[in-house]
Amino acid sequence: MTPSERLSVAIVGGSGYAGGEFLRLALGHPHLEVTQVTSERSAGLPVSMVHPNLRGRTNLKFRKAAELGAADIVVLALPHNSAAKRIAEFTEKGRIVVDLSADFRLKDPEVYRATYGEAHPAPEGLGDWVYGNPELHREDLRGATRIACAGCFATSVILALYPLLKLGVLLPKDIIATGLVGSSAAGASASESSHHPERAGSLRVYKPVGHRHTAEASQELPGNFPLHLTAISTPRVRGILTTAQAWLPDGYSERDIWSAYREVYAAEPFVRIVKAARGIHRYPDPMLLDGTNYCDIGFELDTETGRVVLMSAIDNLVKGTAGHAIQSLNIACGWEETAGLDFAGLHPA
Amino acid sequence: MTPSERLSVAIVGGSGYAGGEFLRLALGHPHLEVTQVTSERSAGLPVSMVHPNLRGRTNLKFRKAAELGAADIVVLALPHNSAAKRIAEFTEKGRIVVDLSADFRLKDPEVYRATYGEAHPAPEGLGDWVYGNPELHREDLRGATRIACAGCFATSVILALYPLLKLGVLLPKDIIATGLVGSSAAGASASESSHHPERAGSLRVYKPVGHRHTAEASQELPGNFPLHLTAISTPRVRGILTTAQAWLPDGYSERDIWSAYREVYAAEPFVRIVKAARGIHRYPDPMLLDGTNYCDIGFELDTETGRVVLMSAIDNLVKGTAGHAIQSLNIACGWEETAGLDFAGLHPA
Amino acid sequence: MTPSERLSVAIVGGSGYAGGEFLRLALGHPHLEVTQVTSERSAGLPVSMVHPNLRGRTNLKFRKAAELGAADIVVLALPHNSAAKRIAEFTEKGRIVVDLSADFRLKDPEVYRATYGEAHPAPEGLGDWVYGNPELHREDLRGATRIACAGCFATSVILALYPLLKLGVLLPKDIIATGLVGSSAAGASASESSHHPERAGSLRVYKPVGHRHTAEASQELPGNFPLHLTAISTPRVRGILTTAQAWLPDGYSERDIWSAYREVYAAEPFVRIVKAARGIHRYPDPMLLDGTNYCDIGFELDTETGRVVLMSAIDNLVKGTAGHAIQSLNIACGWEETAGLDFAGLHPA
Amino acid sequence: MTPSERLSVAIVGGSGYAGGEFLRLALGHPHLEVTQVTSERSAGLPVSMVHPNLRGRTNLKFRKAAELGAADIVVLALPHNSAAKRIAEFTEKGRIVVDLSADFRLKDPEVYRATYGEAHPAPEGLGDWVYGNPELHREDLRGATRIACAGCFATSVILALYPLLKLGVLLPKDIIATGLVGSSAAGASASESSHHPERAGSLRVYKPVGHRHTAEASQELPGNFPLHLTAISTPRVRGILTTAQAWLPDGYSERDIWSAYREVYAAEPFVRIVKAARGIHRYPDPMLLDGTNYCDIGFELDTETGRVVLMSAIDNLVKGTAGHAIQSLNIACGWEETAGLDFAGLHPA
Repeated sequence: MTPSERLSVAIVGGSGYAGGEFLRLALGHPHLEVTQVTSERSAGLPVSMVHPNLRGRTNLKFRKAAELGAADIVVLALPHNSAAKRIAEFTEKGRIVVDLSADFRLKDPEVYRATYGEAHPAPEGLGDWVYGNPELHREDLRGATRIACAGCFATSVILALYPLLKLGVLLPKDIIATGLVGSSAAGASASESSHHPERAGSLRVYKPVGHRHTAEASQELPGNFPLHLTAISTPRVRGILTTAQAWLPDGYSERDIWSAYREVYAAEPFVRIVKAARGIHRYPDPMLLDGTNYCDIGFELDTETGRVVLMSAIDNLVKGTAGHAIQSLNIACGWEETAGLDFAGLHPA
Repeated sequence: MTPSERLSVAIVGGSGYAGGEFLRLALGHPHLEVTQVTSERSAGLPVSMVHPNLRGRTNLKFRKAAELGAADIVVLALPHNSAAKRIAEFTEKGRIVVDLSADFRLKDPEVYRATYGEAHPAPEGLGDWVYGNPELHREDLRGATRIACAGCFATSVILALYPLLKLGVLLPKDIIATGLVGSSAAGASASESSHHPERAGSLRVYKPVGHRHTAEASQELPGNFPLHLTAISTPRVRGILTTAQAWLPDGYSERDIWSAYREVYAAEPFVRIVKAARGIHRYPDPMLLDGTNYCDIGFELDTETGRVVLMSAIDNLVKGTAGHAIQSLNIACGWEETAGLDFAGLHPA
Repeated sequence: MTPSERLSVAIVGGSGYAGGEFLRLALGHPHLEVTQVTSERSAGLPVSMVHPNLRGRTNLKFRKAAELGAADIVVLALPHNSAAKRIAEFTEKGRIVVDLSADFRLKDPEVYRATYGEAHPAPEGLGDWVYGNPELHREDLRGATRIACAGCFATSVILALYPLLKLGVLLPKDIIATGLVGSSAAGASASESSHHPERAGSLRVYKPVGHRHTAEASQELPGNFPLHLTAISTPRVRGILTTAQAWLPDGYSERDIWSAYREVYAAEPFVRIVKAARGIHRYPDPMLLDGTNYCDIGFELDTETGRVVLMSAIDNLVKGTAGHAIQSLNIACGWEETAGLDFAGLHPA
Repeated sequence: MTPSERLSVAIVGGSGYAGGEFLRLALGHPHLEVTQVTSERSAGLPVSMVHPNLRGRTNLKFRKAAELGAADIVVLALPHNSAAKRIAEFTEKGRIVVDLSADFRLKDPEVYRATYGEAHPAPEGLGDWVYGNPELHREDLRGATRIACAGCFATSVILALYPLLKLGVLLPKDIIATGLVGSSAAGASASESSHHPERAGSLRVYKPVGHRHTAEASQELPGNFPLHLTAISTPRVRGILTTAQAWLPDGYSERDIWSAYREVYAAEPFVRIVKAARGIHRYPDPMLLDGTNYCDIGFELDTETGRVVLMSAIDNLVKGTAGHAIQSLNIACGWEETAGLDFAGLHPA
């Protein structure tokens, strides 16, 4: 494949937010050409009617999944558990399949069962899928044809913790991660909890314990330590700010944290260490990341107690979903890793 | 009836925002005792489950409308056109009936038909109802037993314009009123347009022309002039800010506007003229009115053109609905007009 | 003093948010009469120019502190460290002094020095002050004449943890409390960090470690355990939502948490346990508390790990400052404890 | 100049929002290379400290304006009236000068004096400047070396009205335009009115009459009619939604409005006519335009009265300032008109 060649993309379930975001990014990507987008409820309508930011950008119309034709790449943006049940149908259509749901992230079907409360519909193929996190699995992603896009909260947790755990800079003690999550994470379907008067001013703990991304983060993170997640919805639409509370071993200092992040992330195009000595933007803030593929990471150490507060911010729909998937695809296909992901973000925003 | 006596209140349709707000105000009212609240979908549940601000304030549970018993006052908080169809049923239950919908506001059944697109279900009784606007109809409200609560956008328009039109301080020329409206005005039911990710950052013109409150405002305002309304939704939950663009006759000045407002509103307990020479709070702002029964009114004159911008702000659920109704009831029952309506509002808010 | 008697109140530093909120509550209080409000920068102006919610509610004007006259109660709403330096001046003016700052909260001058980085300006009188938290110090407050109002974040932490620590329902293990704080907590002065374009969409970790309220909370909470605070600013104006991550001893269950809260808070007029099995308002949410004196408390247990997530929500300016102070004063003066604090809060809000 | 050549750009006053937005766009532009950015208060600091969205995107540091060196293009992002006073200094440094302020927009020094309350500091050069609105002045912009970027509110008014006025589809009767404006329009300096607690929930009429952009819009719009502006601040950070109330001559219909817009804007790359028969995104909404160079235009006709409500939405910092300037520069330099302006905008946002 030459760099100028474009691969055709079919997006299955393109009327939701994840599919819509993949569509936005793919329309601006130098090596992708979106040829099909499916939606059961909006079949026949222009995609720009559902995603009005794309007015004038595409003339594509939604079709039903039953009308799905072949494509080089099939992107699945379906509700959890839907992709796995029909996976044979989709792998027939395209050489490369990217799943944005949680269906193929967990390697162990037993963990899947414990996490999602039912048996995995297609456990035999689980081993074929690469977890779509370039920072941890770049080599596995090269040439990959099955990519299971990482979860959004999980990504913010994993990227904050991975270097420190890998290099032994944290005690194997309870780590508590609190995610402040925007409303788009719950998807495009209206519900009582997403009703604007009930949500606009709300700070709502929606998953104090038992968050499903715990399994995914635990699978990916090295070491043996208890990981605890709490998720709180905020008035933002996009974005996750995660604070992870962890503990430095005796004798370690701030310098060791810096070293670990630098060693692991030095060459990463989408990870920035944000820790300013002054100013109002000292730590990661999702406000700055809407539409971008960055994961900003920062930290602060309480030298009296050894407690370290790790912070990470992402746009849940980009680095947390569609952008992460594009980055993974770029690696899989041998393209420039940043292709299609160059938006810098806005300030003010 | 002695001042300390309490009248019993039944609220029909109490799970919506208008009914919930009436309930909140009635629970704190010295002469009202809420004894029944109906809701078809929440029957059997504590009202505080739907209106969580009332936790610890009441042990009432919703019942079905079919189980409605007698009460001194029946308050109808039903969707438009529902109250009128069943009005005989409700007038049987209570001596005083207050309707929060648009069903009994318009005096002329033909205007109702033109405005709401169907014949009025109970036109014979229209003459019994007093339009629930104390500033215009205080005398009619004394002893009234049928009160049709004024519409929220209409109230903001009427109160801004009434004194100037009454006293001839405006030209009989097109008046254009633009209302910036919070999301609670669309009610408690979730919909695509109220889905937080679609609404939180939106400035959405939802009724550029043809707003139904035009009929109501035209009915109540003196003089013969064309009135044009435009309604835009904002990211606020409560509140309406209306700017009305009108024209001063030759020879009139700012002083005449001041005089008109003072003459008409001098003794009004809930109308404040807000026009400060400096500071950041120079004009009416709904930010300051959440939960209050105030209508703040201000203005600015363009001396070069005679254009005058009238501004009014209210909480759509209080002065725009439930508070206005309570104030009307206070007058109807001979109580202190401000009873139960003493909340000052918050700053900051 | 008979119940109908009113005590005169002077508010020193009344142009800020804490002083303004005390003023709002005091104006509606049956036993208080505000006679003086000072502000250096706004001296001579009507208080309603700075607190526009009070238009039509008071004709008071600000005076300079130098013109402060005698009053039954002197309320100090000054920047931290200002009250202590001039405390003799203020105790001369009033029999009862309520300080809303942090100056007199800590009993131990050494802890004050460690926390605030300088020696306490008036350490000799520290023992005279009662920490203004009615739930913990109701008996001490009766007849008290020196009340040091509790800090807002500290209050949310203390009220969530106190019953469980008191009754031994938590392990003496690290407790991590994360506070999501509204912008009003930083006060009424404009700054770069409070500039709307920089703040409106922000989730900003402003105090990951080293929060000063740690000292206060540790002083008040029973038992010996490490307490760690992290504070994050949110797009809300008012309110704090605190999640405290703690650990249940072996053999304890959800029932023990319920029991502890019920035992300690059963008779508390302003503490509500919020833990609904269904619906969208299952846990405490500051959205519902603007303007109220409630502290809503909830929890969830991870039965697999023994981790318990305690949640508390308050309005930082009411239960976190001025309302807590009024409640303390009500006890100190022998009045109905809820006097002046009856606002239920709004829904939607 | 070949297409691949890059022109050097110096941004004077680059710490504000307009300068920062120009910088963001220029950094991603194929033919521009930013070599200098000045800021008096931030001289010596990395630009990414003030514009944190540019972390990892540029290593530029601010310098003082006194250290300004030569550049192909000098962009002035100074407070109004500052650029004009020192214009000779800047034209010396660069062949092409783009001014983002209001200083060179008005052709007539007397109109400038009437509008800005003082004599123009450099009236002799006013004729050299092209008003930076490509839709109206594309031909004049080709090869231009002095570009006066159009004002943001003015742009939204002009683009909504221009085709209809040009083609005689509106009566020469009072046109009233109401602009709902985000907080970034007031600039990067903190003030009492921009203090988050005072602004977050506010709907504040800040310029009911006498808006300075009236002069600019009147200069650019054809025909002789009275134009009246009212400006209201909203809780958004970016964006302007303008509704213009105008009047159709007898015998004209919706079709004529469509025709006029289509005739004038058919080939415009950044103007979209948005008028959907259904769905929730029927009209222009600034929510969808953050970061984009689009001006979305829609309308609705009241067939009973001939009133037409024209609506336009822009991002005040892009199509309202820096993007408009880039588009003008692209034309002036003979580049692809859309170069550097390809961001589609987000949904949800």
